[in-house]
Amino acid sequence: MTDFSLSCPLPLTDQKTILMAHGGGGRMMQRLIEQLFAPAFRNPILDRRHDSAILSLDSAAPRLAFTTDSYVVQPLFFPGGNIGTLAVNGTVNDLAMGGARPLWLSAGFILEEGLPTETLQRVVLSMREAAEAAGVQIVTGDTKVVDRGKGDGIFINTAGIGVITHPLTLNPAQVRPGDAILLSGDIGRHGITIMTEREGLSFESAIESDCAPVVEPALSLIEAGIAVRCMRDLTRGGLASALVEIAETAGVTIRVREDDIPVRGDVRAACELLGFDPLYVANEGRFIAFVPAEEAERALQILRFHPLTAQAQRIGQVEAGEPGLVSLRSRVGANRVVDMLSGEQLPRIC
Amino acid sequence: MTDFSLSCPLPLTDQKTILMAHGGGGRMMQRLIEQLFAPAFRNPILDRRHDSAILSLDSAAPRLAFTTDSYVVQPLFFPGGNIGTLAVNGTVNDLAMGGARPLWLSAGFILEEGLPTETLQRVVLSMREAAEAAGVQIVTGDTKVVDRGKGDGIFINTAGIGVITHPLTLNPAQVRPGDAILLSGDIGRHGITIMTEREGLSFESAIESDCAPVVEPALSLIEAGIAVRCMRDLTRGGLASALVEIAETAGVTIRVREDDIPVRGDVRAACELLGFDPLYVANEGRFIAFVPAEEAERALQILRFHPLTAQAQRIGQVEAGEPGLVSLRSRVGANRVVDMLSGEQLPRIC
Repeated sequence: MTDFSLSCPLPLTDQKTILMAHGGGGRMMQRLIEQLFAPAFRNPILDRRHDSAILSLDSAAPRLAFTTDSYVVQPLFFPGGNIGTLAVNGTVNDLAMGGARPLWLSAGFILEEGLPTETLQRVVLSMREAAEAAGVQIVTGDTKVVDRGKGDGIFINTAGIGVITHPLTLNPAQVRPGDAILLSGDIGRHGITIMTEREGLSFESAIESDCAPVVEPALSLIEAGIAVRCMRDLTRGGLASALVEIAETAGVTIRVREDDIPVRGDVRAACELLGFDPLYVANEGRFIAFVPAEEAERALQILRFHPLTAQAQRIGQVEAGEPGLVSLRSRVGANRVVDMLSGEQLPRIC
Repeated sequence: MTDFSLSCPLPLTDQKTILMAHGGGGRMMQRLIEQLFAPAFRNPILDRRHDSAILSLDSAAPRLAFTTDSYVVQPLFFPGGNIGTLAVNGTVNDLAMGGARPLWLSAGFILEEGLPTETLQRVVLSMREAAEAAGVQIVTGDTKVVDRGKGDGIFINTAGIGVITHPLTLNPAQVRPGDAILLSGDIGRHGITIMTEREGLSFESAIESDCAPVVEPALSLIEAGIAVRCMRDLTRGGLASALVEIAETAGVTIRVREDDIPVRGDVRAACELLGFDPLYVANEGRFIAFVPAEEAERALQILRFHPLTAQAQRIGQVEAGEPGLVSLRSRVGANRVVDMLSGEQLPRIC
């Protein structure tokens, strides 16, 4: 990480202005975080760089997880969800990935003048339903209104607090050679749904976002005593970016098999038509779990018990090779290196 | 509060579209919260309606305070601060008003494509300095980028967690007849600063925002054993709206004396010129505290010990009269009723 101090106030990012790609979950965003946010805010908790921060009040109290995300998706409503369901599920999923049970959410709304009140109401009711489904309460909130043309209907920020009631520490640094990698289900549906809505495309079979809270299946692994090393939900940047980020942070090689990564036929067809690689397409209800190889089969059985993760697959393993390398064995048996994109294939996906 | 359920999905607010006033901290915002957000998200914690939610993990762990605010101020930089200092101080102040010591913040950025990277960097460095000054760590964050023309430079959301280490419960319902009302300092500077910047006005003496963390003076009251009933920072809607909201929630009459409310000469002159009433102008480093009358003098001495609250004044008292009435005794001895404005005198103040 580049060092940075108040005595050196010049921009270290290599772009003079912010681009869409800085919010895309790829290399550009990673660089913005590493060169601007992380050095400025540096502290031991933030430096762990996981989806949620792990907080300890004192040694007697249970640890807490704390996370935040802003949601700027367009369109606001799409098959399988809307910005409100995303804002709840995205944040509870980040908490669950840290091994925490989500308890409380905040909700901050930035509304554009002229927004139909009924639109806001539909979104808010969806948030209520999503919160009930995920077992969390929305306990505090805030509303700001910006002038017409200075916003885009609705932006929502949610922050969440969860409680950790087990001794495990889940983060990329725990991942080690030999670990098995489990994927909770088919990939690519959320991104393709947004894309087809935005472009007004239609396919023979209706594709719906996979937006859902993964709290129960994720925590059931831990509750069953599986020594989970790390979990990560596959949002912006998709499966590929999550694998690369973890391989880099853990300093390991990751090998996955394309054949074992479920992609629905209609999603694959849409990807081919649109020129997308499903590995990079965003999901909102999918995650990967790194577990000890000897516990992989039992972990899979636990996941498959839950309807949301009934299609869970073992997709690969961690090896002690080149640090940061992610290698995909394709259907035809060729190996290719999977890298992180610089930006996002599709902006404003969440 | 109007009842509301999923079986009655029609808007209950009397406006079909969102107006700037819905974000102004006045009656319109109050109505949006009461008719739309509160019924949808209803739960015992949210229903307490204070600036921060008070959370209990279990009876053994200390209580936590949790709050969120989004910041959309224009211009981004102004004398005395910028959107970054506001985003830190506003949220730590909300926690302190709940009697909590702020510990951890999240930071969610919504950036507009084309924003100069250097602007973001200046804001982020200000956040770091403000966080250090307030004794909090920024432990988790998120960045989204929206298309040019769909945002306004930078919007920031911060959520904060604080810890409560005393047995007091601070909220408007604790306020009772006989309580004294203390004001921490002069009012109106933040709003007038933003207004003069935005309109390109200039006055002979430079007016700077009062933006500051009030954590130390606010908590020092509690640490000194003062039985503080309620504290409230005077942001959107100013002193007047805070008094009316508390009088209504507590079901009491509040009487204040205009002569005892400090307003700087230059702020008063600017208010007269611009047609503003300083009672309604926003502050970002000012608060009121309701304390038992017999402890008022000691509380004042404690506040005056801190540089930030050296001008603290006792401005009035709580009486058992008409619930929700706020009465101001003017300089010339006349009493006038202080009501809440429908919106804000000045939009996008924070």
